[in-house]
Amino acid sequence: MDIFVIGVGLIGGSLALDFKATNSNIKVFGIDKNRDNAIEAKRLGVIDEIASPDDLHKADMVIVSIPVDASLKVLMDTLDKINDNAVVVEVGSTKVSIVNAVANHPKRRNLLLTHPIAGTEFSGPAAAIRNLFKGKTNIICEVEKTAFKLQEKALGMFSQIGMRIRYMDPVAHDKHIAYVSHLSHISSFMLGKTVIEKEKNERDIFDMAGSGFESTVRLAKSSPAMWTPIFEQNKDNVVETLEEYISNLEQFKQHLINNDFKAIYNEMQNTNHIKEILKGIIVNA
Amino acid sequence: MDIFVIGVGLIGGSLALDFKATNSNIKVFGIDKNRDNAIEAKRLGVIDEIASPDDLHKADMVIVSIPVDASLKVLMDTLDKINDNAVVVEVGSTKVSIVNAVANHPKRRNLLLTHPIAGTEFSGPAAAIRNLFKGKTNIICEVEKTAFKLQEKALGMFSQIGMRIRYMDPVAHDKHIAYVSHLSHISSFMLGKTVIEKEKNERDIFDMAGSGFESTVRLAKSSPAMWTPIFEQNKDNVVETLEEYISNLEQFKQHLINNDFKAIYNEMQNTNHIKEILKGIIVNA
Repeated sequence: MDIFVIGVGLIGGSLALDFKATNSNIKVFGIDKNRDNAIEAKRLGVIDEIASPDDLHKADMVIVSIPVDASLKVLMDTLDKINDNAVVVEVGSTKVSIVNAVANHPKRRNLLLTHPIAGTEFSGPAAAIRNLFKGKTNIICEVEKTAFKLQEKALGMFSQIGMRIRYMDPVAHDKHIAYVSHLSHISSFMLGKTVIEKEKNERDIFDMAGSGFESTVRLAKSSPAMWTPIFEQNKDNVVETLEEYISNLEQFKQHLINNDFKAIYNEMQNTNHIKEILKGIIVNA
Repeated sequence: MDIFVIGVGLIGGSLALDFKATNSNIKVFGIDKNRDNAIEAKRLGVIDEIASPDDLHKADMVIVSIPVDASLKVLMDTLDKINDNAVVVEVGSTKVSIVNAVANHPKRRNLLLTHPIAGTEFSGPAAAIRNLFKGKTNIICEVEKTAFKLQEKALGMFSQIGMRIRYMDPVAHDKHIAYVSHLSHISSFMLGKTVIEKEKNERDIFDMAGSGFESTVRLAKSSPAMWTPIFEQNKDNVVETLEEYISNLEQFKQHLINNDFKAIYNEMQNTNHIKEILKGIIVNA
């Protein structure tokens, strides 16, 4: 089976590694507009061969794992080029823009829209790791629009690498993911910014920051090239979550200013409830 | 050497475990206003004996590791009760209120003000773990106001359990720590709140939340009883950091509304610089 990975970074590269590890008959071809990435991916054994878009007609499966803005065009071109039995798997963090872009493509039934909820704050071929997806959720959108045999093939492979499959409407996906992923990233980036601006003397941050700070700003290491188009495509939902977040922060600040420490206590106690929710995530991680 | 730990939770309990592990001649006595905590600490081997404040005259060292509001009074009472050669080690997350409270106590020179920058989101005796402090920083305030021999004894023990020692003015401590610790906690609590409010159906959070969300809201599991008095005592600094954080979030939101994605990209790229700062923390963690 010949799998082509377009964008041999964290997600595409990690999928390539897991698919190869669970299927002995897989050969992975890498396509990357950045030639250095492709070369590094081959050197690291993430891909077997470097390929070009002109080779896509040979693919049994194509994984498109590039920033979601570039994805809009690349998905259309890829669908144009593949053979009738190939499945194209898209793995981006937004879905509505993509659904709209591909809606009328004659090969729409060759496309499966997925969002594997997995990742790290790193990027590029060197960030690709084994078992990134084990125990994680893969959200599938508009599954009914993909040819049944192709769904079956791709979803079987995701199950094989340890993923739980969930189905969701693209509008609901973009709305919920704004809360549990996109807002976390903005919160983290702006926290990093606030601290860096204040603490010009980095030595002070370095000495005083503990693991709590590290954990909260971890996502501020994420790739701007990946995240800018996500925020652009999911702008309305992201703005809404930001407004609610800012309003909660404002309220907390007002409680402080009013010396209402009973309210401060209650805010935190009510949110402690997140423990039970997170337990679910961690158990399944 | 008889060490009394007042408040046998995460910090006090973990210090007890490390001190016992690095010094064979140490016996640890636990004092906790919650009798169940004291019993559990003994059962877990965190302390050797349960004691009461009336026993404090026998102590060679007293660690006061309770919420910073209770600490103000307990520190005074403890200094009243100890013998002249004992050292009282305070480990709270704020310093100015404490410095002011103890300034005129006749046994001020028996007190060492420390802030071990270490912890987890858990609390209580069961949260006490070995090596919590290894490679972490301990910030010492007003070191010159502690008798030299007592400084030497306590700091020697902190070095022995692997801590780096840094000296800082209490005002500077409270200002910097508001950025690198207190703000992180509020950011995390409010993120948790925003998501919980929106996602009444917890199943959706559970299924869609990945390790990024988990990392960003980890601190929202922290104890309200510990954090409320910290925010109260450091109110002015915390309000200032919150204002800057909210203003950065507002600006980010405006860039989104204005479709200024170049600015969004730049905000993230500039903050990526946090990587280098965090590398320092992690290397030393």
